[in-house]
Amino acid sequence: MHIVPESVISDLITPEAAFDAVEQVFAAMAAKDAYNFPVVREAIGHEDALYGFKGGFDSAGGSLGLKAGGYWPHNLEKRGLINHQSTVFLFDPDTGKVSAMVGGNLLTALRTAAASSVSIKHLARKDSEVLGMIGAGHQSVFQMKAAVKHRDFKKVIGWNYHPEMLSRLADCAAELGLPFEEVDLPTLGRDADVIISITSSFDPTLMDAHVSPGTHIACMGTDTKGKQEVEAALLKRARVFTDEVAQSISIGEAQHAIAEGLIEESDITEIGAVINGSHPGRTSDEDITLFDGTGVGLQDLATAAKVVELAVEKGVALEVDF
Amino acid sequence: MHIVPESVISDLITPEAAFDAVEQVFAAMAAKDAYNFPVVREAIGHEDALYGFKGGFDSAGGSLGLKAGGYWPHNLEKRGLINHQSTVFLFDPDTGKVSAMVGGNLLTALRTAAASSVSIKHLARKDSEVLGMIGAGHQSVFQMKAAVKHRDFKKVIGWNYHPEMLSRLADCAAELGLPFEEVDLPTLGRDADVIISITSSFDPTLMDAHVSPGTHIACMGTDTKGKQEVEAALLKRARVFTDEVAQSISIGEAQHAIAEGLIEESDITEIGAVINGSHPGRTSDEDITLFDGTGVGLQDLATAAKVVELAVEKGVALEVDF
Repeated sequence: MHIVPESVISDLITPEAAFDAVEQVFAAMAAKDAYNFPVVREAIGHEDALYGFKGGFDSAGGSLGLKAGGYWPHNLEKRGLINHQSTVFLFDPDTGKVSAMVGGNLLTALRTAAASSVSIKHLARKDSEVLGMIGAGHQSVFQMKAAVKHRDFKKVIGWNYHPEMLSRLADCAAELGLPFEEVDLPTLGRDADVIISITSSFDPTLMDAHVSPGTHIACMGTDTKGKQEVEAALLKRARVFTDEVAQSISIGEAQHAIAEGLIEESDITEIGAVINGSHPGRTSDEDITLFDGTGVGLQDLATAAKVVELAVEKGVALEVDF
Repeated sequence: MHIVPESVISDLITPEAAFDAVEQVFAAMAAKDAYNFPVVREAIGHEDALYGFKGGFDSAGGSLGLKAGGYWPHNLEKRGLINHQSTVFLFDPDTGKVSAMVGGNLLTALRTAAASSVSIKHLARKDSEVLGMIGAGHQSVFQMKAAVKHRDFKKVIGWNYHPEMLSRLADCAAELGLPFEEVDLPTLGRDADVIISITSSFDPTLMDAHVSPGTHIACMGTDTKGKQEVEAALLKRARVFTDEVAQSISIGEAQHAIAEGLIEESDITEIGAVINGSHPGRTSDEDITLFDGTGVGLQDLATAAKVVELAVEKGVALEVDF
């Protein structure tokens, strides 16, 4: 079996490789060649930690396994470690033997960014020029860097609950050669052609009235019951896409619109169907498209499998006789 | 982190060490210091394999993690590999970082045998002399070897659906210095003081009428909806104990007696309560005691943690900077 520690991953995987892996596995999910297992997520009553497993099997890509880990909120202050800790374990689907162990921290950021950028490639208007960012946390820069590869953005505008953190977005935009402007939410909703929301909010931030026709919105922060980034009415007005419908309606952004009866499960389309060409996706420049990115285990498995392939190629995977 | 491959485990862990680990974690479960997570178990539609995760957290013993793997029924004929394949992953409960990876194949046999022997220690009559074995598969010898440490057995009697396999039990008994006799089921039920049933049966083998008062029965084979080793009426006559009540009533031996209304959930006691002294266990020499051993993830974590400790002590754990 192969071991790829966290420390070597940033030199191995590119956002492009993560994009390809995630796009392929979303397509496999919609084609019923890949599926995610029930998620285990436990508040273990120690260190206020949330711990669990996201597993799945992609028979097309040959990936079987899980990401294990979670959120340890006191890691940084107490120990100088990052709070999100995860590890991906891959298994040989022919034998059930473990085949690889891969650090999952950077991969989680990359696969989440890859998901929103897949949605931008397949759903945003081709002439999108203004990228709106809601949220300026750790993951926001991964999101911005992945997004700009798929449309010819001229400008980034951003909003964050704590405005002092917006320098992170400004710095990232500068690195990408794009001007950045701090705006209020109505301006962001009016001017952005593509909006990425990546927050840990439990109340809607972006309201339906803010958003102009033709916008694509990727809601990437809602992955738990109770969280919410955008007003539920916006999902009624939009064409709604997701990675996995079961998660979208239970722990994703769509949970609220579903609970309020504004939309039904059948109104939500797996993005893989658009990738596969079995759903048209956006049908006019006036459509609002909304991608509810909930995060599935198969994204982790697909990117981890790519990392193992690259690590073996470059001779940096540790081989263990297990 | 530490890696302990399957190949070194047989030289590290003794049945006694597995016994202590399992007894302690059963006690922790009953004291509410340890709990198992929901089990994930998936027929993945490839190689007829069953794959999944059994996780848990023992705050008393400090074990957090999961066993991942399953059953690949064509491994042996196709590839010369054993059909049950599993790996245990341990995590640091203080940080969420992976701390160990341990081969889970031998451990699964040892922790299952440890469970029945814990039940014998705490529930069988002190003067038990005849051990009855139902089932002669791979795990039966582990069961017999663990059982004989806790009572002064004079004889082993056995039955198996395929009688030609009984030589395995005879050889094991000979190794332990005990006479072995092949018997029919009514004789086994009448003469045995302790019965271990470890089969993959979907129909009851041991009937209520077979069993004499005073017997202790460990039902170790039923771990799936539909499986059954003993007649449901026997559970009504017996005092019923288990590793975990939630599994006992859903996928364990008690599922049938519960479904038929013969017993209620409140009639089933966690063996840990007997270990802790909060339940008397057997109250007379006439009691029939029945242990429904369903197999929980915490048993795997506890024995794996012990293996890591021993491997580090003996310098055979591979240390990886992950």
